[in-house]
Amino acid sequence: MSSTVGKVIRCKAAVAWEAGKPLVIEQVEVAPPQAMEVRVKILITALCHTDVYFWEAKGQTPVFPRIFGHEAAGIVESVGKGVTELKPGDHVLPVFTGECKECRHCKSEESNMCDLLRINTDRGVMLNDGKSRFSINGKPIYHFVGTSTFSEYTVVHVGCLAKINPAAPLDKVCILSCGISTGLGATLNVAKPPKGSSVAIFGLGAVGLAAAEGARIAGASRIIGVDLNPNRFHQAKKFGVTEFVNPKDYDKPVQEVLAEMTGGGVDRSVECTGSINAMISAFECVHDGWGVAVLVGVPNKDDAFKTHPMNFLNEKTLKGTFFGNYKPRTDLPNVVEMYMRKELELEKFITHEVCLSEINKAFELMLQGDSLRCIIRMDA
Amino acid sequence: MSSTVGKVIRCKAAVAWEAGKPLVIEQVEVAPPQAMEVRVKILITALCHTDVYFWEAKGQTPVFPRIFGHEAAGIVESVGKGVTELKPGDHVLPVFTGECKECRHCKSEESNMCDLLRINTDRGVMLNDGKSRFSINGKPIYHFVGTSTFSEYTVVHVGCLAKINPAAPLDKVCILSCGISTGLGATLNVAKPPKGSSVAIFGLGAVGLAAAEGARIAGASRIIGVDLNPNRFHQAKKFGVTEFVNPKDYDKPVQEVLAEMTGGGVDRSVECTGSINAMISAFECVHDGWGVAVLVGVPNKDDAFKTHPMNFLNEKTLKGTFFGNYKPRTDLPNVVEMYMRKELELEKFITHEVCLSEINKAFELMLQGDSLRCIIRMDA
Ligand SMILES: NC(=O)c1ccc[n+]([C@@H]2O[C@H](COP(=O)([O-])OP(=O)(O)OC[C@H]3O[C@@H](n4cnc5c(N)ncnc54)[C@H](O)[C@@H]3O)[C@@H](O)[C@H]2O)c1
Ligand SMILES: NC(=O)c1ccc[n+]([C@@H]2O[C@H](COP(=O)([O-])OP(=O)(O)OC[C@H]3O[C@@H](n4cnc5c(N)ncnc54)[C@H](O)[C@@H]3O)[C@@H](O)[C@H]2O)c1
Ligand SMILES: [Zn+2]
Ligand SMILES: [Zn+2]
Ligand SMILES: [Zn+2]
Ligand SMILES: [Zn+2]
Repeated sequence: MSSTVGKVIRCKAAVAWEAGKPLVIEQVEVAPPQAMEVRVKILITALCHTDVYFWEAKGQTPVFPRIFGHEAAGIVESVGKGVTELKPGDHVLPVFTGECKECRHCKSEESNMCDLLRINTDRGVMLNDGKSRFSINGKPIYHFVGTSTFSEYTVVHVGCLAKINPAAPLDKVCILSCGISTGLGATLNVAKPPKGSSVAIFGLGAVGLAAAEGARIAGASRIIGVDLNPNRFHQAKKFGVTEFVNPKDYDKPVQEVLAEMTGGGVDRSVECTGSINAMISAFECVHDGWGVAVLVGVPNKDDAFKTHPMNFLNEKTLKGTFFGNYKPRTDLPNVVEMYMRKELELEKFITHEVCLSEINKAFELMLQGDSLRCIIRMDA
Repeated sequence: MSSTVGKVIRCKAAVAWEAGKPLVIEQVEVAPPQAMEVRVKILITALCHTDVYFWEAKGQTPVFPRIFGHEAAGIVESVGKGVTELKPGDHVLPVFTGECKECRHCKSEESNMCDLLRINTDRGVMLNDGKSRFSINGKPIYHFVGTSTFSEYTVVHVGCLAKINPAAPLDKVCILSCGISTGLGATLNVAKPPKGSSVAIFGLGAVGLAAAEGARIAGASRIIGVDLNPNRFHQAKKFGVTEFVNPKDYDKPVQEVLAEMTGGGVDRSVECTGSINAMISAFECVHDGWGVAVLVGVPNKDDAFKTHPMNFLNEKTLKGTFFGNYKPRTDLPNVVEMYMRKELELEKFITHEVCLSEINKAFELMLQGDSLRCIIRMDA
């Protein structure tokens, strides 16, 4: 047993002291895990838009000082009372949403929206005692979505940890903690394109490209990428995208362009933009009789989805998904196995790599739109 | 072989000479069936709202004189060239929408919206030659949705006829031609409530009660009927409806009332009203994580379905259906068998019965909201 068990660990973490200000590498104290908690040594973390969004904290309740980070991979250092599924040394992916295995959602085959551990972006503390496990000189530093992976050690609820194959390379599978699984699952678990079908992907960021990767894996014959930014098109070829449509190149709504390209509509569409216009187009562009549209992007608070109800009576289906409908503990280990069997390609998503001390560079790359995923090595 | 084969048949039919005016029983001439057509002796027909709607012809292109009627049962008298699936003496249900078995929709497992034979309410003629098979003194009388069952004999495209078990009582299974199958299929084929689940039915007309019958057959444990008309509630008990909600009895939106009754939302909902407000409520009242809402009612031309997109991201699904997703030729014979096995109850839908000469009484009953289904005996 490691000599740190039951003790406070002092380690490096990237602390966000204020909204929008560069992170600062600090020595933090990480308390031992309490009941149903696990302390994890993070080896690799990646940066996702959601980190940047809550770091900018525009129009939200700011929770600072805070340790961001939620796409990561690590190794269990120690476990708290009641934790039986994990032991020190296990390889894990922390996830921003959890699976208690007890609630109606966890017991339903269809839902992954756990009542107890569903994402909560406002809470900066642990559930067990309503306190933070991070501190600097006794002053609490807040958690982010229960993961806070921009730290060499972090404390996570056992329900937010997926135990994975120890042979899996952590510097690849770490990106399965959030965006990539979200896009992949949106296609594989929700849109479910039949082999040989046509799939439109709205938005060719990391999430949309992961949705395209799902379409490739499912054997779609046409994968049509739709994005307002033509720079996205070059990169998308690596992800099996066969055709491109920039809505700005046409006078008519993009749903009509897609209907003409496909003899009446695509078989499936997956929206990964967050734009309400794209959501409506993604729905209206599917074929009547069998078309299925899946919404992934997070809309603005005041957005309204608006369409003519005849579109539904013509047997088009509209669904949305959260984390690609994956249950974190039950399903993520299998996604890691898909990668191990070389069915799923992850390398092409990882465009940049930095060490913890350079973490602000990862923020800059994302803000400039230059990176798909930038991984951050904690030990370098 | 019957002596009428290949000849014009003279018989009685209820003709609508003008919009909204009582039908008149006339002697009509029914031409022999052409290629891919079948001449059917109608024994029983029923009246559906859609007949009344196009007879009133408010805000539509009026097509008169016309023979209405699309819920019926009969026996094949003779068949035209190329018809191999049916022969004289076969028992059939005519259906307002067809199945050519050749187009992309017919070949898809998911769709029943045949490209060739999909419902067309404006067309008053047969596809083969663009002419009517009905006439009086050489003047054409137009068809309605390819069925025109208010006639002792009618001519129907072979793709719009379901061949059924000859042992089935035609005065019961005739109502499977339209509304009852629509509601039943909306629940059984599209909403698919798991055993023990909760189902909300919006609108307790014949279609909604058939949707409730589907929920009963599926083993739903709670069937919550929602209707603005409290008179509908008494009758609904026979259809397994366990609880009632009248939106007028509450100050808050009915979706909130249903969420409170069910700990967060119903598992499934089926909208059978045609009201856009009910459509929105039916969607928003389903539980996040797994809820599925199905739209059946035909909306107004200018209606807009409007909701916050977060409802989709919370994993609610919205679908619509046309004719309960049944393929007329492939699936209706099996629905008849459900009745024969006593799984499906039809008697409770048939509240009235008249003979052809009294057909205008059937219209009155429906306009007053007194009947669920009034059947009309052709031979009486
Ligand atoms: N549902 C979930 O569980 C979940 C998880 C992670 C991310 N997301 C959401 O997924 C979305 C995509 O994430 P990302 O990281 O790939 O973002 P991104 O910003 O990298 O990519 C979005 C792309 O959409 C394009 N776009 C914007 N509006 C468009 C329009 N109207 N038509 C076509 N293209 C348009 C942009 O040009 C951009 O290339 C975001 O809304 C994010 O919040 C959801
Ligand atoms: N999709 C199809 O294939 C198909 C086939 C047949 C009928 N339909 C449609 O199904 C619908 C129902 O048909 P029906 O024959 O049962 O009609 P109906 O008029 O007998 O019943 C409709 C019921 O809905 C109730 N209602 C109206 N607005 C409501 C609201 N806002 N909330 C709650 N209840 C409300 C009415 O009080 C009435 O009892 C119609 O719109 C019809 O056009 C669709
Ligand atoms: Zn749970
Ligand atoms: Zn993320
Ligand atoms: Zn067809
Ligand atoms: Zn009808």
